[in-house]
Amino acid sequence: MPLKFVLAPDSFKESCTALEACQAMAAGITRVFPDAEIVEVPMADGGEGTTQALVDATGGHMVKKEVTGPLGNPVVADLGILGDGQTAVIEMASASGIHLVKKEERNPLVTSTYGTGQLIKACLDNGIKKIILGIGGSATNDGGSGMARALGIRFLDADGKDIPEGGGHLDKLASIDLSGVHPGLADCEIAIASDVSNPLCGENGAAAVFGPQKGATPEMVAKLDKNLQHYDKIIQRDVHKSVGQIPGSGAAGGLGAGLLVFTNSHLETGIDLVIAYTGLKEKLQGADYCFTGEGQIDFQTKFGKTPYGVMKTAKAVDQNIKVVAIAGSIGENIEVLCEEDFDGVFGTIPQASDLQTLLAHGKENIQRTTESICRLIK
Amino acid sequence: MPLKFVLAPDSFKESCTALEACQAMAAGITRVFPDAEIVEVPMADGGEGTTQALVDATGGHMVKKEVTGPLGNPVVADLGILGDGQTAVIEMASASGIHLVKKEERNPLVTSTYGTGQLIKACLDNGIKKIILGIGGSATNDGGSGMARALGIRFLDADGKDIPEGGGHLDKLASIDLSGVHPGLADCEIAIASDVSNPLCGENGAAAVFGPQKGATPEMVAKLDKNLQHYDKIIQRDVHKSVGQIPGSGAAGGLGAGLLVFTNSHLETGIDLVIAYTGLKEKLQGADYCFTGEGQIDFQTKFGKTPYGVMKTAKAVDQNIKVVAIAGSIGENIEVLCEEDFDGVFGTIPQASDLQTLLAHGKENIQRTTESICRLIK
Repeated sequence: MPLKFVLAPDSFKESCTALEACQAMAAGITRVFPDAEIVEVPMADGGEGTTQALVDATGGHMVKKEVTGPLGNPVVADLGILGDGQTAVIEMASASGIHLVKKEERNPLVTSTYGTGQLIKACLDNGIKKIILGIGGSATNDGGSGMARALGIRFLDADGKDIPEGGGHLDKLASIDLSGVHPGLADCEIAIASDVSNPLCGENGAAAVFGPQKGATPEMVAKLDKNLQHYDKIIQRDVHKSVGQIPGSGAAGGLGAGLLVFTNSHLETGIDLVIAYTGLKEKLQGADYCFTGEGQIDFQTKFGKTPYGVMKTAKAVDQNIKVVAIAGSIGENIEVLCEEDFDGVFGTIPQASDLQTLLAHGKENIQRTTESICRLIK
Repeated sequence: MPLKFVLAPDSFKESCTALEACQAMAAGITRVFPDAEIVEVPMADGGEGTTQALVDATGGHMVKKEVTGPLGNPVVADLGILGDGQTAVIEMASASGIHLVKKEERNPLVTSTYGTGQLIKACLDNGIKKIILGIGGSATNDGGSGMARALGIRFLDADGKDIPEGGGHLDKLASIDLSGVHPGLADCEIAIASDVSNPLCGENGAAAVFGPQKGATPEMVAKLDKNLQHYDKIIQRDVHKSVGQIPGSGAAGGLGAGLLVFTNSHLETGIDLVIAYTGLKEKLQGADYCFTGEGQIDFQTKFGKTPYGVMKTAKAVDQNIKVVAIAGSIGENIEVLCEEDFDGVFGTIPQASDLQTLLAHGKENIQRTTESICRLIK
């Protein structure tokens, strides 16, 4: 019986997408095992590339949509529609990401998640009932209030006027008006892909931990944290939900909290969501080998990265499936990975080169490495 | 039954010796197979590192000896005595190599193989009956006349006086006087390790092909070639041997010819000699895996390089022995190697780095790669 290979790599960042990595692996395999059964499952971990990977894995398609960027300027964001036609994938960074703001303009007092809300609204307007929402890489610290505003929720000051956008103005919040909320929101289930366990406020909260990388000074961090505490208090009073202490509510500048409060949502780790939506477990049935991989593999791979999640899934399906990781770059202390049941971690770099050259030859290096692995196991 | 691994790498040039490569591989293996039977056979291909590898493989020792360098200055050369105490290994480059001459001083008209002759004489003086002589990397074009002179043979001009050293003076040669030859020379068998098939003279000869890299101008090449033709003629008349057309006689500036004429010697490819003297074939009996490798592996590896010779030997012993090559650097077109029965060629480079960093971490990179290979085959 021909061998069955399941190919479940993440993207090799700046070199090739997860799908291209699958294709390179498949090319290497067929040179050695022309009759092999090969199942390609491009993966991601909830971070950058998740939309593309899930679209590729399910035969879906990408949609581009102009929305309001973090500073109010228009940006073109990506929205993925999975192969079932009923599930959307959004990366908040696509609409409200830190990469959309020039370094000198970064200011979490004013940045808004409004564009992410617009993407959700676009899904609701099209009858989508299920959204996978990756929330890494945000430029914002507005507690998800901008997102909620795009969905019809109003944040009012003492005079009943809308407060301005941005976490810096949440101290003016006097009441929340849910009366105009989008009618589709309650029927739409949002799975939030997040690997962050920080609460909304306090010393481990959104402002304290992630504020500085978004451009906040210590004074701004103090103000933002105080404002989020106030925001949490008003939410408890007006929406009757208490989410500020939930691990993950502080993700993406409190977008985690905003989603948990205003939408029908739950938090999941990115890799678990991707594994579920790609059907990886089912596809691994009867597999002899599972090849995974990523641009960089190191001891941190244990913490929510794709190759680790794939390995655990494969071994749970059948302890006899050999799981091999292929890495563009192998970092420190990968011994801990091998002790963790990987059946080998192989680098793809052929010779001393600058990074640009290596990134440009990622696909052929993956193919060659895969071919050698196959000759070895033949 | 525990697996048997035979480790037969060449050195990883500028990074680690063949023995160190063996040790790194062994360390990687024992992390996965603590009970494995591991046989270390440090290898070489007749070029640089051959003496050390054969000494290491047989439990011999190194001897240092001061001899006359290519330009007459003293140099300290290495001589290996194998574990049997009766076989010596010499690399001509150690006494007469191009690396011993500064670039601006390179001049094959005057460089001499005298020092190589002194090493042979030292062996004869100590009763050695068998010499393995690697002849790559020479600075010379003297037809081995300097080497012969150190062994008591005289090269005389028309007045019966010794001609000066160096290929540029061979036109003055009128006769060869063998009467004072070292008495031990006839009883000593010299195996010349050479991968060069060039004849002594002509357009594919020593001067034409290798002269320029030793510092010869076109005029010098013409003169050197003419002199070697004259040298060959006098040899035929006075020594009654005709070696100028034998493939390999042009190796090392005609040292090949000088050895074939004046000593009891024969040419062999370097890798075949090393395979024979390390007992690789016998050590491969019953092996499950053979790990070989070298600093650089590319399509040229097919032409006399260690990993190729090791692979052919292993497959000849038993087609079922899996042969894996580990390379510091993987060059172009290694597909041809895999088609040639290698069961995988794996690079060791973990991440984009400069060459110095990679060379400094050679051993740990070999160990890590070997460990992953072992996990895969476990």
